[in-house]
Amino acid sequence: MIDVFDDTYFMRKALQEAEEAFERNEIPVGAVVVIDNRIIARAHNLTETLNDVTAHAEMQAITAAANFLGGKYLKGCTLYVTLEPCQMCAGALYWSQIDRIVYGAKDEHRGCGVMGTKLHPKTKMQGGVLQEEAADLMKRFFIQKRNLN
Amino acid sequence: MIDVFDDTYFMRKALQEAEEAFERNEIPVGAVVVIDNRIIARAHNLTETLNDVTAHAEMQAITAAANFLGGKYLKGCTLYVTLEPCQMCAGALYWSQIDRIVYGAKDEHRGCGVMGTKLHPKTKMQGGVLQEEAADLMKRFFIQKRNLN
Repeated sequence: MIDVFDDTYFMRKALQEAEEAFERNEIPVGAVVVIDNRIIARAHNLTETLNDVTAHAEMQAITAAANFLGGKYLKGCTLYVTLEPCQMCAGALYWSQIDRIVYGAKDEHRGCGVMGTKLHPKTKMQGGVLQEEAADLMKRFFIQKRNLN
Repeated sequence: MIDVFDDTYFMRKALQEAEEAFERNEIPVGAVVVIDNRIIARAHNLTETLNDVTAHAEMQAITAAANFLGGKYLKGCTLYVTLEPCQMCAGALYWSQIDRIVYGAKDEHRGCGVMGTKLHPKTKMQGGVLQEEAADLMKRFFIQKRNLN
């Protein structure tokens, strides 16, 4: 039997969120939080719209998921995000004790990997899911930005 | 002439916020953001009240200060916080490009120092201002918690 609810399925949902960010002229990063194959939070980057550096997709998704669950720990949850989390978001995920983080494209400059951010011992992380699509969306965004300025 | 608006003055304001957190049964951490000797944001930890791991004092203070300034970068600002920022908060402060971070007590276990979180090159950090008061408040909080459970 084919499992339709695999990492690619949920990353596509995160990519849809990233596309919404793109349309709002935001750096296109999207995220969803999943528990038992059910999406309980969707968010995209809103740092420009809200004038707030803390408004990354992951931060909003963590808050929304905790709100849905009625508790602050994201036990049993997986976060799908199109770009590798930064220090802030990985730090927030540390506190959430989330089970799993799946990201698309690697952030070689500001990602938690290169920055050395610590994850919670309970948390597993995996990258590279639909990375080409995520990276391509970012590239298109910055090319468009350059052409407009 | 004595400068009444020194680091101790503003840290006392952050401590007042921490005391408010204590009264709400929150881990007592408080923060203020200051520009030109003027407090533009005050906040205290609300993680339990909001059921949200992202609701640290610093995160709320960053959002409130950006809101006040009408821009997401905290240029010319100093954040006073009673406890050394964690990875998440230091990561958010990185994005804010804040001028200066002043903290009270060191967090030997989860502070950005021991965790190795990177600050923005524009940001200076200093600890130890009214550290005994901040640490004492934390100690009293956890003793009370232990006695109640």
